[in-house]
Amino acid sequence: MPRPVPIGLAVVGAGYWGPNLVRNAQATGDLRLEWLCDLDVERAKAVLGRYSTVRGTASYEEVLADPAVDAVAIATPATTHFDLVRAALEAGKHVLVEKPLTPSRDDGEKLVDLADSAGLVLMLDHTYCYTPSVRRIRELVRSGEIGDVQFVDSVRINLGLVQPDVDVLWDLAPHDLSILDFVLPPGITPTTVAAHGSDPIGAGRACVAYLSVGLSNGALAHVHVNWLSPTKVRTMLVGGSRRTIVWDDLNPSQRVCVYDRGVDLTHPENLDRDARRQALISYRMGDILVPALPEHEALRAVMAEFAGSIAEGRAPLTDGRHGLRVLALLEAASRSLELSGAAVDVAPVDDAAFDVAAQVGGHK
Amino acid sequence: MPRPVPIGLAVVGAGYWGPNLVRNAQATGDLRLEWLCDLDVERAKAVLGRYSTVRGTASYEEVLADPAVDAVAIATPATTHFDLVRAALEAGKHVLVEKPLTPSRDDGEKLVDLADSAGLVLMLDHTYCYTPSVRRIRELVRSGEIGDVQFVDSVRINLGLVQPDVDVLWDLAPHDLSILDFVLPPGITPTTVAAHGSDPIGAGRACVAYLSVGLSNGALAHVHVNWLSPTKVRTMLVGGSRRTIVWDDLNPSQRVCVYDRGVDLTHPENLDRDARRQALISYRMGDILVPALPEHEALRAVMAEFAGSIAEGRAPLTDGRHGLRVLALLEAASRSLELSGAAVDVAPVDDAAFDVAAQVGGHK
Amino acid sequence: MPRPVPIGLAVVGAGYWGPNLVRNAQATGDLRLEWLCDLDVERAKAVLGRYSTVRGTASYEEVLADPAVDAVAIATPATTHFDLVRAALEAGKHVLVEKPLTPSRDDGEKLVDLADSAGLVLMLDHTYCYTPSVRRIRELVRSGEIGDVQFVDSVRINLGLVQPDVDVLWDLAPHDLSILDFVLPPGITPTTVAAHGSDPIGAGRACVAYLSVGLSNGALAHVHVNWLSPTKVRTMLVGGSRRTIVWDDLNPSQRVCVYDRGVDLTHPENLDRDARRQALISYRMGDILVPALPEHEALRAVMAEFAGSIAEGRAPLTDGRHGLRVLALLEAASRSLELSGAAVDVAPVDDAAFDVAAQVGGHK
Amino acid sequence: MPRPVPIGLAVVGAGYWGPNLVRNAQATGDLRLEWLCDLDVERAKAVLGRYSTVRGTASYEEVLADPAVDAVAIATPATTHFDLVRAALEAGKHVLVEKPLTPSRDDGEKLVDLADSAGLVLMLDHTYCYTPSVRRIRELVRSGEIGDVQFVDSVRINLGLVQPDVDVLWDLAPHDLSILDFVLPPGITPTTVAAHGSDPIGAGRACVAYLSVGLSNGALAHVHVNWLSPTKVRTMLVGGSRRTIVWDDLNPSQRVCVYDRGVDLTHPENLDRDARRQALISYRMGDILVPALPEHEALRAVMAEFAGSIAEGRAPLTDGRHGLRVLALLEAASRSLELSGAAVDVAPVDDAAFDVAAQVGGHK
Repeated sequence: MPRPVPIGLAVVGAGYWGPNLVRNAQATGDLRLEWLCDLDVERAKAVLGRYSTVRGTASYEEVLADPAVDAVAIATPATTHFDLVRAALEAGKHVLVEKPLTPSRDDGEKLVDLADSAGLVLMLDHTYCYTPSVRRIRELVRSGEIGDVQFVDSVRINLGLVQPDVDVLWDLAPHDLSILDFVLPPGITPTTVAAHGSDPIGAGRACVAYLSVGLSNGALAHVHVNWLSPTKVRTMLVGGSRRTIVWDDLNPSQRVCVYDRGVDLTHPENLDRDARRQALISYRMGDILVPALPEHEALRAVMAEFAGSIAEGRAPLTDGRHGLRVLALLEAASRSLELSGAAVDVAPVDDAAFDVAAQVGGHK
Repeated sequence: MPRPVPIGLAVVGAGYWGPNLVRNAQATGDLRLEWLCDLDVERAKAVLGRYSTVRGTASYEEVLADPAVDAVAIATPATTHFDLVRAALEAGKHVLVEKPLTPSRDDGEKLVDLADSAGLVLMLDHTYCYTPSVRRIRELVRSGEIGDVQFVDSVRINLGLVQPDVDVLWDLAPHDLSILDFVLPPGITPTTVAAHGSDPIGAGRACVAYLSVGLSNGALAHVHVNWLSPTKVRTMLVGGSRRTIVWDDLNPSQRVCVYDRGVDLTHPENLDRDARRQALISYRMGDILVPALPEHEALRAVMAEFAGSIAEGRAPLTDGRHGLRVLALLEAASRSLELSGAAVDVAPVDDAAFDVAAQVGGHK
Repeated sequence: MPRPVPIGLAVVGAGYWGPNLVRNAQATGDLRLEWLCDLDVERAKAVLGRYSTVRGTASYEEVLADPAVDAVAIATPATTHFDLVRAALEAGKHVLVEKPLTPSRDDGEKLVDLADSAGLVLMLDHTYCYTPSVRRIRELVRSGEIGDVQFVDSVRINLGLVQPDVDVLWDLAPHDLSILDFVLPPGITPTTVAAHGSDPIGAGRACVAYLSVGLSNGALAHVHVNWLSPTKVRTMLVGGSRRTIVWDDLNPSQRVCVYDRGVDLTHPENLDRDARRQALISYRMGDILVPALPEHEALRAVMAEFAGSIAEGRAPLTDGRHGLRVLALLEAASRSLELSGAAVDVAPVDDAAFDVAAQVGGHK
Repeated sequence: MPRPVPIGLAVVGAGYWGPNLVRNAQATGDLRLEWLCDLDVERAKAVLGRYSTVRGTASYEEVLADPAVDAVAIATPATTHFDLVRAALEAGKHVLVEKPLTPSRDDGEKLVDLADSAGLVLMLDHTYCYTPSVRRIRELVRSGEIGDVQFVDSVRINLGLVQPDVDVLWDLAPHDLSILDFVLPPGITPTTVAAHGSDPIGAGRACVAYLSVGLSNGALAHVHVNWLSPTKVRTMLVGGSRRTIVWDDLNPSQRVCVYDRGVDLTHPENLDRDARRQALISYRMGDILVPALPEHEALRAVMAEFAGSIAEGRAPLTDGRHGLRVLALLEAASRSLELSGAAVDVAPVDDAAFDVAAQVGGHK
């Protein structure tokens, strides 16, 4: 149910990402930051600094027991998510959680069900979905502006921290897969995943991985994630029958380019397979448009969406089911890795029979 | 056997690539261009232009019968290669042929055997191997400068001509695979290939494809080829334990960068799998070196190598067996495509028991 | 007067640029290349190569005496231009000449007058004006698309050949100044030039120079030319009140970008100077458009324009008066250099009272 | 005299830059932020946010009267600097002040003298001098690594805020000129300035400006500042006889490149002017080195230097005399603008007869 702002918030986890949550929560008028919680309370206090009135604590129980806390934002290792999120939901708190929702889809479903039945918001901090670039790409794809989706190619490589508990796929690909889920038009869904990976440095888990994701319309999406590249690349191509989008997140002056270029096949639909080979192919070499995009920090928009979905009693843009769909892809990818790259079907995620969004008429 | 220069040459095929062969042959002192042969003799004459003393002809027989012709350079569609190359070898002519050697490896082997037994040069025009960039990458990899090869990632995408007879894999990947074969140190060979592709425009053949190539040292090489990308990308990363090479062929001011950056694992060899996960990982963030490279047209070097190998009676750098190794990868990739991406073993190519190179002591 | 095609042509000068003229003349159907003339006839023959039917000669007299020669294209050092062009015009030949027309404006005017009175075409090979980029920029500026011209900034730097007879200003700035003359709308003309230069390597002439060119509408154009820069830069900004053009000639995928960005002043015209300081300033942060441009070699278009202007008896786009206007800027710049950067007025170039263009109704 | 840390600090000015000072002061252990002062106290409180223990005030007197305040950091409009800095120094507070020190050099000298006689630190927040890039450039230039300085070219353009009180020269060029002063080796000083500017939008002050700065060794430094460019460029070239540095501040992966490329003149010193023209010129086309640089926020280093110079009783790297030298260039540039670009001599700044640095033996 809706509740009035400001919403009392506790941030849990003072590691790599937690300080960003703290900073952006403080800058969000509809949130009132109450606590920063970390098992290492000194680290929490160091993050808050010498000038803050926000309290640090090592006790998650203390946080959940505080009636001033309406919601928690969890930025701890993935293996802790299930217990922390469940406890928060059971304490009646709304939850924003880092990716991935949990390391297992089964556990993820339990949390989604729990949030549903409690009428609480469960939101994934898939930060990229809240960038102006991805918002625009979603509009361009879903509005039909680019035509039919023909291919998606995403590259996310750089000299990355080799994680102690997850491979490069679970570390980086959630970004690409959540963006994919976010921008694809309704009706086009991933059906199969094949994953190839390697661990050339002997880290004990894949440090380089490639995902080929078959989409229900026959197109192919592909993701390249790599912890070992000395150069940083963050690009995504979304090829369409009318336009193709090139997103280069590291080019601040031209993050999103829309190309009116492509290959057209004239009248192929009336031809049999052999005749099609002879069909007339033409090339469009049109203009490139670089749309003006606002510059704002994505995490600020995450916080606003979290606060907004709680205040309005609606599902957030990146809700638990969105998180489950990403989990389904990651699990299929991991199985494919174990099977030396064999294609693995993606188990579909049911839409909610009854969820927060349904209560308020949904949210597009 | 060696023969004196200049070497009489005929170029066969006046389509897309033939004119480049004509121009570079004319600029190579050790070659003497005699003919440009094309079934469409008017096209041949148009390529030669109004000011040339070189003869155009539609008759391949006339060319092969000409004793002034010592060698032919063939730039015709792949499906014609087998007949044209065989006829030339049988007529005692040395052969330079465009990629791929033939559409089938069996046919390719026949040509290699034929050239071997006739003591004639059979050379692949894998032009990229003759660029200053790839020559330098080969040196950096083979000298041990970059350490152990950990990964290779190659991207070759642009709005390309949808070919009437071959898919994007056979059209573009020969470049990447020949470069891979050329730069890998002796002893590291491709063992398996998995390929994923799609034809989102209904062209009747794959227009987008991804190849994952398992190497014998456990590393993974990957190739992305795409005819539908509105942007042109030509990059290759060769990750090593000591250095990583980034080749960007479209950045003329910095085509090759050598990064002293990477991830190191301290003493992982003495640890069991669990302990290894805790092993100390460190990151090098060193300098980048951009070596000065000469600027010359690669096809000029191809012509010089062709003339040189004939004159010296030795195997060229990109000889028939090199072509066969590329064919073996392409065939495995095609089979994998048919098998929905299942990994396919790469059939090894035997070294020659007796070949031109062996006669003259080989050529590094 | 018009004359039928093909037009017999001789190229004079087989140094750096001559071979490009030879190659493009041969590819132009309306031209018939007869001679390549160079004092060093061996060099001329080497440029033509072993397969050409074009004749090489060391005798300019022989060329001018040949009735098959209708026109000459001169690519020799600037100090020779006056004598060579005059002799050609006196022999009744049309002339295409490399920049600069002559080292002195007085001499240039004599040549223009001579061509006028003889009814012959005198055209400058200001190659950049024939690139698709500059053609498009001219359209964008002259059509009013970008609004009023507010500033022009041109940078042309790289590790260049230190010329034996001219400084960097006379070597490189003709490109920028001819483009400036070509794209500025009628009515906006350069009025003053200030030039700053230095010779930090002791070459005996300026190797680095900066030109500030005051325009008649109050705007400032600026040119930076430099032989000593290890990086190559070729950019021009044309700032307008509605749009700003950014031309980066070394970025083949986006040579010309049109920015809908700028600074607007609301109603400043009704305010006195003090009030204007308080006037409302607003910023437009609109889209960027990258227009599709054809890819063709500019020198091919130069040849076509030369042949076309002869065949049609009209002034070419970059005629002698255009060359004189560039000379006037160069002379003023040289005087300013001598005067330590003091601003020097640009002597205007009269339009022709009677010229080739006027005969045929002009050419836009 | 030295004083123990932490040093009590007040930030003055809560506009564009003040919040950055607040944030970085809070993160600096040797500083203890006491106040944020702004005439608009609500703005100050908004900058501090809802969670801060730092006090906001509108009363500068209150700040200066507070014995817990040892130092002030002033980020207010330039026209207020003289009064605010003088009052702080007279109250015995150390001062960090935004550029420019004051709008007039005479006033600046008074402040420097006042700080000297009071034994207080007066430091300019020339932030760029504290970036890893500029620190490295300074080392490369001053160590002789690049050889003799041959030219400097700095470009700083973007769609900038048209300032109400200063022109583009006083707004942006202090960055370039302070960097120039910071990196030039001792003994090479600016001697003359010529400035060209224009106000094409009718803003009442120059929005585009070019500075040509003659150096005492005969080389030329040049600065291009522009508020109207839709593209953002921040580059500086420092050409040397042995190496040339290219700094591109907007290319985070390669901010500083050191080119082993250049033009060499063989033995020109023994030749007269005519002979020199024939002297042998050679070109080096060597490697490019991209040194690894630490990534840290420059303003953090500014704060550390401010705290360190106070604690150690020494002159900071960018002390008042450094500020005066920048002022001398800006004043000369403004005079040149008024004189239509005529070259104006730069009045030298005397080294301190007795200053803080001298007390502690100086600081390189």
